[in-house]
Amino acid sequence: MPLIAHPQFMPFAEALPLKGGGHIANYTLAYETYGQLNADRSNAVLVCHALNASHHVAGVYEGQDKSQGWWDNMIGPGKPVDTNRFFVIGVNNLGSCFGSTGPMHESPETGKAWGADFPVVTVEDWVAAQARLLDALGIEQLAAVMGGSLGGMQALSWTLQFPERMRHAVVIASAPNLNAENIAFNEVARRAIVTDPDFHGGHFYEQGVVPKRGLRIARMIGHITYLSDDVMNQKFGRQLRDGLDLRYSTQDIEFQIESYLRYQADKFSDYFDANTYLLITRALDYFDPAREYGGQLNQALAKAVAKFLIISFTTDWRFSPGRSQEIVHALLDNQRDVTYARINAPHGHDAFLLDDPRYHQLVAAYFDRIAKE
Amino acid sequence: MPLIAHPQFMPFAEALPLKGGGHIANYTLAYETYGQLNADRSNAVLVCHALNASHHVAGVYEGQDKSQGWWDNMIGPGKPVDTNRFFVIGVNNLGSCFGSTGPMHESPETGKAWGADFPVVTVEDWVAAQARLLDALGIEQLAAVMGGSLGGMQALSWTLQFPERMRHAVVIASAPNLNAENIAFNEVARRAIVTDPDFHGGHFYEQGVVPKRGLRIARMIGHITYLSDDVMNQKFGRQLRDGLDLRYSTQDIEFQIESYLRYQADKFSDYFDANTYLLITRALDYFDPAREYGGQLNQALAKAVAKFLIISFTTDWRFSPGRSQEIVHALLDNQRDVTYARINAPHGHDAFLLDDPRYHQLVAAYFDRIAKE
Repeated sequence: MPLIAHPQFMPFAEALPLKGGGHIANYTLAYETYGQLNADRSNAVLVCHALNASHHVAGVYEGQDKSQGWWDNMIGPGKPVDTNRFFVIGVNNLGSCFGSTGPMHESPETGKAWGADFPVVTVEDWVAAQARLLDALGIEQLAAVMGGSLGGMQALSWTLQFPERMRHAVVIASAPNLNAENIAFNEVARRAIVTDPDFHGGHFYEQGVVPKRGLRIARMIGHITYLSDDVMNQKFGRQLRDGLDLRYSTQDIEFQIESYLRYQADKFSDYFDANTYLLITRALDYFDPAREYGGQLNQALAKAVAKFLIISFTTDWRFSPGRSQEIVHALLDNQRDVTYARINAPHGHDAFLLDDPRYHQLVAAYFDRIAKE
Repeated sequence: MPLIAHPQFMPFAEALPLKGGGHIANYTLAYETYGQLNADRSNAVLVCHALNASHHVAGVYEGQDKSQGWWDNMIGPGKPVDTNRFFVIGVNNLGSCFGSTGPMHESPETGKAWGADFPVVTVEDWVAAQARLLDALGIEQLAAVMGGSLGGMQALSWTLQFPERMRHAVVIASAPNLNAENIAFNEVARRAIVTDPDFHGGHFYEQGVVPKRGLRIARMIGHITYLSDDVMNQKFGRQLRDGLDLRYSTQDIEFQIESYLRYQADKFSDYFDANTYLLITRALDYFDPAREYGGQLNQALAKAVAKFLIISFTTDWRFSPGRSQEIVHALLDNQRDVTYARINAPHGHDAFLLDDPRYHQLVAAYFDRIAKE
């Protein structure tokens, strides 16, 4: 019998101050929980999501067959993060488009959709908002906070903003900041969205249109960078869409990889919000805990007291193993307890979402250790 | 005193059959030559261009200070390809937008600009057209044909289409075909152009508009893939545009890398033709001499009898050294004379255009050997 997920919504009246200035008040966070909080409230695990995911981390929705949460292979009864032992919380971040307050919701000041006027949110703001959700749920300390990619940045930021509020941080396929190439890819995606005539300066809701052209381009770029060169060659190579015949056309699909990208792009543009895409890529760009320390990551991480599990994947060129190792070295400089694994996986950045046995066994062993502490 | 370049134009009345079907008649090729053809007509070197370059390979135009040809550091008097010894020919490919017949010219059938109806041209078609230019110039055999990137593909194709018409092929930063990731990047660029409302199905000339939004995105993607991760981090890193202050904005420029990309994109969209971009990226996608041989590159290259110089650059992730080595191995399987160098250069794919001393000394030594043969 599958785990059934129930989305919940927590309203917050009090204004949350934002790192970029200003604040947001009267906002709502969408979240889900799986498993039971134990009597001493010590078994909670917070899972932070990456670019296009949500609070729906595990399980399925009642009566909806193909509604598995985005990390359902990792989290659930008997899974690496075992919901028979842990109380797992998934939360949708502020500015997202899956239930928490975001650009498509009404701004209390104007009575219209926020649109491009939604405040710029940072990883630090998301973590602060998540901490308030824990307050509301009566959880003082997490057993662990975990996430992959941008979710890993949130886990890392938790250890700096609320060092005493978690015992472990699990940071997967992540980085201490984006490098120039990462920012460059984000910028191209944002330009594609912003220059789509249907974007209307971010106020397209009122026009009854969606900047789908821009969203499609953004998603295509994303997909290319999530996959490794190797896995693309294995899955698609130079395979033609229609068997052996070339059509000789600049606009029709010739190769399977083109068909795949166009399909993924269309799907994405049907459900993802353009303003959210801008906000989340900017949160990625801005994250850089070493910035206030003149680029010295070891100084920035001195505050962290959690124990760390850090995982990278060999073929991830978006957040390469070297970037995870920067975090490992900075923590070791501070004599912190760090477990690091570089997993030989062919799937590129996407590997963190896939069911690789060595990866899952490692996470399972780590959470077993947490449960027994 | 600088080399002065003089663009020339050669009309061809006879129809050229095209690989994708059909033909093109009454076309013109723009070309330039540098140096003197010797008495026995044996010192000609043909230089093939890549995506956004032209027949203007070397020298400057009279009275135009900053008009250096795109490979001026490589070709000229006393340079690695020494125009005191060699007669160098640069030619603009069919379908390009720098003087040869292309989509912005009038179609003899309709009396309007070809636009998206310009025939799909392939690397093989370009080579066939270049061979006709040599016929017109009275050159039976080239001392060498050379090119980088897509230009290297043309050099390789020359050795298969006209094995006896050159003594040497110099193939730099190239590949025997595009892999799935390369095709994917091309496809995103094409989608950005084609879905720009100003593209008008490729017939934007009549509308008096240019699909600049799409061209900008295409160029940004190109630039990211031409540079290495390392060189981007060195040149730009996370440097802010306005010194130390963040603005917290999703649409304004924050990082230098964003400013650089937007500048390059704007510049490109002012001069490059959108239909040409589609044609040239498709020619890249289609090139695959091993295709007719069930993917066996060594069988495909059996026809080649030229001597080869093949050069790759360590940080080139668009056409990685491994791709050049595929060509080397296939030639060695056929007992061909191959010189191969993998040059340790930080600049990514762009390295082939830059003035790296080891690279230039190698090319100089090779052309010295050719001159003395």
